[in-house]
This record gives sequence, C-alpha cells and structure tokens, in this order.
Amino acid sequence: VPGYQQDALTEDQISGERELFGPFTQAVRELVDATIRTTVAPEEIRRAQAEIEAITSRLTTSQLPGPFGVLFGTEGRGRPWGNAVVGLRNAVAPPLVVRQLEDTDGRTGRICSDFHLGAAYEGPPDLTHGGVSALILDQLLGEAAGAGNRPGMTATLTLTYRRPTPLGDLRGEAWIERSEDHKTWARGRILAGGEVTVEAEGLFILPRWAREAIAERDAADAPTPRFFE
Amino acid sequence: VPGYQQDALTEDQISGERELFGPFTQAVRELVDATIRTTVAPEEIRRAQAEIEAITSRLTTSQLPGPFGVLFGTEGRGRPWGNAVVGLRNAVAPPLVVRQLEDTDGRTGRICSDFHLGAAYEGPPDLTHGGVSALILDQLLGEAAGAGNRPGMTATLTLTYRRPTPLGDLRGEAWIERSEDHKTWARGRILAGGEVTVEAEGLFILPRWAREAIAERDAADAPTPRFFE
Repeated sequence: VPGYQQDALTEDQISGERELFGPFTQAVRELVDATIRTTVAPEEIRRAQAEIEAITSRLTTSQLPGPFGVLFGTEGRGRPWGNAVVGLRNAVAPPLVVRQLEDTDGRTGRICSDFHLGAAYEGPPDLTHGGVSALILDQLLGEAAGAGNRPGMTATLTLTYRRPTPLGDLRGEAWIERSEDHKTWARGRILAGGEVTVEAEGLFILPRWAREAIAERDAADAPTPRFFE
Repeated sequence: VPGYQQDALTEDQISGERELFGPFTQAVRELVDATIRTTVAPEEIRRAQAEIEAITSRLTTSQLPGPFGVLFGTEGRGRPWGNAVVGLRNAVAPPLVVRQLEDTDGRTGRICSDFHLGAAYEGPPDLTHGGVSALILDQLLGEAAGAGNRPGMTATLTLTYRRPTPLGDLRGEAWIERSEDHKTWARGRILAGGEVTVEAEGLFILPRWAREAIAERDAADAPTPRFFE
C-alpha cells in the first residue's frame, strides 16, 4: 500500500519515540495557543520569533523529505503520527485519543473519544469552527469503519449542525450503521455537556488498489493497515 | 453580537499588528512542520522542547483570558485572527487568503483561494486529510455566503470526495447557489492541478439572535460582522 512503510522498530523503540515526541509536540501545541492569545510587547514577539526560527533551523538539519506517512513497526500496528486529527507528532492535531468500545458482535466498530479544543480551533467567537467538527467527525467515522474491520476512504460525508459547539471539553462517538461489499456506512456525533451539537453520516469505500495490496500482504502474512490513518 | 468586540484600533495600528504577527505566526507554522518531519537526535529534541517551553512561558505572562474572537477596528472590518482556517495568528490555519471574484449581479458571492498544504494536513499517506478538505470547504462556503451579503452559520454540509486530494498547491472555490429569507445554499470545490477532488454543498442560516443584533447595530450605524468569521 503506497505510503505505508515498515520501519521495523520494536515495541520498546516505539515506546521511546512516543515518550520523546509526545511531550515535545505538546510543548509546540502550547506555543500555538500562546501565539494566538499573547498580549506581550512587540519586542518580546520579535525576540520569540528569532528564537523559534533558530530552533526550526536546528530541527530541519535532518528531516524526512516529505510528510510523515504511516509507519509500521515489527508488531504491525500503524503509527499515523503526522495525522491532522490523531497525530502524536502533529501540533495541528488536538490530538484525539480514540477508544474502541465493547461491541457485542464485533462488527459495529463502536468508538469514542473525549477531547479538549482550545483557542486554535475557533470559528465564530468562543465556538468550535464548524469545519473543525467536520474534520474530527471524518476521522472518527473512518476509525469506526476500521475498528469494525471495514476500513475505507471517505466517499461522502454529511454534517448536520444541531446547535453551536462550544470550545472546551467535548466528546465524539461513531459507529458502523451497515456495510455491503467494499462499502461501509458510518454515523457519529459530537457532544458538549451531554448534548448533541453535530451529527454526521458518511460512506467509506475501500478502493481497488488497497484491496489488491491487502490481499497480497495477507498472502505474505505481512502487517496490513487496519484503516486509512 | 456576542464575542464580536470593537477595540477601536486605527488602520495604521492594524497594519502594524499584521506586520508583527504575520511573520511570527509563520515561524510557528514552520516549527509545526519541523516537529513532524525532524529526524535529529533525541538530545536535540529535548533541548528544543526546553527552549520552546521557555518562550511559551514568556508569551503567556500577558495574554487574552480565552480565545481570540473577532475584533473590529474603527473601520468596521473584522479581524478573525484566531480562526482555524484563515486566522493570521493561528498556526493551525494554513492560513487561507480568500479573494472575492467579479460578480455580475453582486449576489453570487463568488470567492476563491489558492493555498498550500504541507505535512501538518496529512490523512492517508501523502494525501490531504478528508476532514481537512471539509474544514476548508466549510470556511469557503461560509465566506461565499458572507461575500454575497447572505451571512450565516453552517446548518448542513455535504462533501463528495471525487478523487484523493494530494498535499501541496491547491485551489478552493465557492459561490452562492440560491437564497431565501435567512437561508443561503452555497456550493464549492477543491481542485488539484485543475481537477476537482472534493465537492461541497451547504446550507447557511442567520440565527435569530444575530438578525436582532445586526438590526440594532444597523440602527446605531455601528459596524456589523459581514459573516461568521
């Protein structure tokens, strides 16, 4: 599958990377928040800018030639660490931590996520950007499809905004509604204080190239991506 | 209108803020990209983290109590500088610069935006996250509604994914399809290399509280928000 690369890191090495890059990226997220909200003097902003540029120069002396992609270690689980919603190393991502829920028949792919959105996710004043809700629900519906072993790429996604979504502590939920051949219909919603603010439904389709690649990998007993991270 | 505040900055003061915070936030965006892609040694990551934490500490000695909101200067144009898509001070935003296109009858609200998405907007390997396309289209359709003097908040949004959207240079377009009372239907799309990758249609509604607040402000000859930034 193009872009899904195996780097053969062991579980221990992956834990080490997680412990290194988790707090590092969190520090960058806090800087992003401060960049929006700071009211310090202009000379302080200029000094901070010069220091940030110096840090970036050092970090870019050695870097990947392009985006992060999805890496696979020896144990076969993907690391979508550049992902815009769940990426451990992406300061644009809140990041969401997705939990798989108990599932009586193993096919509903029910998942949920409790997350916090700060100033960086604002649309109308004090509210979550409607498009940020769409971004998060696209990821959650895709994760539900994957959790139910029905991975796919988004074909259609429909959002219905029931009421404004505040910034702050929110909950996302998603599950598979039904599936047929390579198509999976999933639904989900965002809740604030227990009230539904946005509902979503989407169709996810596993493309032919992915079906072929997965069949090849299954034959070779190699790890396969569980969903399109 | 709640959260839309007037700070009475002059045009010159706003230009000064733009020249200060534009490059500063761009430096933070480049740090976000480096955070995802760097392959430097662990001790370099730890050193960068400590320095970033020190910068954030200085920036947060004086800051807004919450998100940025939308500020209005004396000239009446809003500054949605914390906005997740177009925000000048938001490193999560690419940011998009939206241009209003020639409009024969002044009611189609036709707008477009040329933008670049890097590693921070990845979903599947090497591709733009489907939810990021939704995020951007929500903003563009809303801007089209506002540009046609039919502002509103998103009520429904439907995305149809025609083909994968690469990362890199992209174009967004949006326009008003029709409107009726407080409802406006808008359409839009994302193009890569001239080919449509994602299409969107949405319904935007101006809520009652906003209609009342705008009527009051119109009566008082005060600046009104042109759309829900």
